[in-house]
Amino acid sequence: MITAGGSGSRMGTELPKQFLLLHGKPVLWHTIRAFREAYADIHFILVIPAAHAEAGKAILEELNLTAQSVLVEGGATRFHSVQNGLQKVEPGSIVFVHDGVRCLVSPDLIKRCGEQAATRGSAVPAVASADSIRITDEQGGHQSIDRNRVRIIQTPQTFQSNIILPAFQQACRGEFTDEATVVEAAGTPVFLIEGDYRNLKITRPADLLVAETILQERAAQ
Amino acid sequence: MITAGGSGSRMGTELPKQFLLLHGKPVLWHTIRAFREAYADIHFILVIPAAHAEAGKAILEELNLTAQSVLVEGGATRFHSVQNGLQKVEPGSIVFVHDGVRCLVSPDLIKRCGEQAATRGSAVPAVASADSIRITDEQGGHQSIDRNRVRIIQTPQTFQSNIILPAFQQACRGEFTDEATVVEAAGTPVFLIEGDYRNLKITRPADLLVAETILQERAAQ
Repeated sequence: MITAGGSGSRMGTELPKQFLLLHGKPVLWHTIRAFREAYADIHFILVIPAAHAEAGKAILEELNLTAQSVLVEGGATRFHSVQNGLQKVEPGSIVFVHDGVRCLVSPDLIKRCGEQAATRGSAVPAVASADSIRITDEQGGHQSIDRNRVRIIQTPQTFQSNIILPAFQQACRGEFTDEATVVEAAGTPVFLIEGDYRNLKITRPADLLVAETILQERAAQ
Repeated sequence: MITAGGSGSRMGTELPKQFLLLHGKPVLWHTIRAFREAYADIHFILVIPAAHAEAGKAILEELNLTAQSVLVEGGATRFHSVQNGLQKVEPGSIVFVHDGVRCLVSPDLIKRCGEQAATRGSAVPAVASADSIRITDEQGGHQSIDRNRVRIIQTPQTFQSNIILPAFQQACRGEFTDEATVVEAAGTPVFLIEGDYRNLKITRPADLLVAETILQERAAQ
């Protein structure tokens, strides 16, 4: 499942960031192609606002994926979008939930997530932090936390369907910022695996620049 | 004070990352030039391993900063390097402690740090996290923390000399990963200010790519 519901407000652009062009193709095209490269017969659930459904459909057509794809309308929050998408999941499958704007995800990372989730029930990619981190409190204060204990969470967050489907039958809560928190709240621990520093999320103009550079570098190889 | 003590081990290169070329100049050259742009008469303390002192000196000469600079040998840890450098600080001054590999720091951010530290005693730039964050525990578990409470810490960490100098008379502790933690351990709260997403730390090859792209973009403006 690819979630492509962002509004682009942080980019300062009219066009939602998943449709900005990278190396001549929309961000979302690169994302979807990475999954096709990992598993040629993977089934795509593209969760996308109605206003962008046509653009999403065009990308799937260009990648010859129409026959193995379904479009689902996004919800008010990420939780609701994923909940909508999960209605199209087949029992007994492995479900990858991936940010449409993480277009540099590698087929290798996707396959590692798939293998780990098949064995352990879940796989959530995470990387270490190169920077010191502080946590603020409600009094306006803040405290340092040991950098070695910090994991920066990425996607695809990957689960066996029998774990993620019942978890999303809960009511939504404010702390559900990703699928891992939803699954944990349902009582199932999630497993972290090593992510990839290049699997960045396109949220700001500088991210688009680095993505462009990395894609050019890959194309030249 | 510019700390330029890294070994480059994470870059997979022989050359320490502060000497890698960006837009035709060493990373460290860009860093030092940003401070010169912010304050033309600023006094530089360059903390650098003895093996790289000549290369550091050459950068200062090229930027016509020899008369207002001093080189200090790095220590075994960041704490000891900064402690060495602080011996050259004049009483009554504002001290900026900056990672040599944060070469995209803007003169604007440097000046905001200087102004805030002059008023409040300290200024530590920090930005929000675009990603979900988890904290691991000693049992191999991990838990999600509210992303809105996370601050990613940058440099220059900026202090009045009468705050940072006594703080560094403490014995070093493992949790001293930056100057803010040292100052807090001495009993003085530190103030966070809004950092800059582009003020990235060159720690991995992908960072070098984005820095190159951003510098090229700035040069074209």
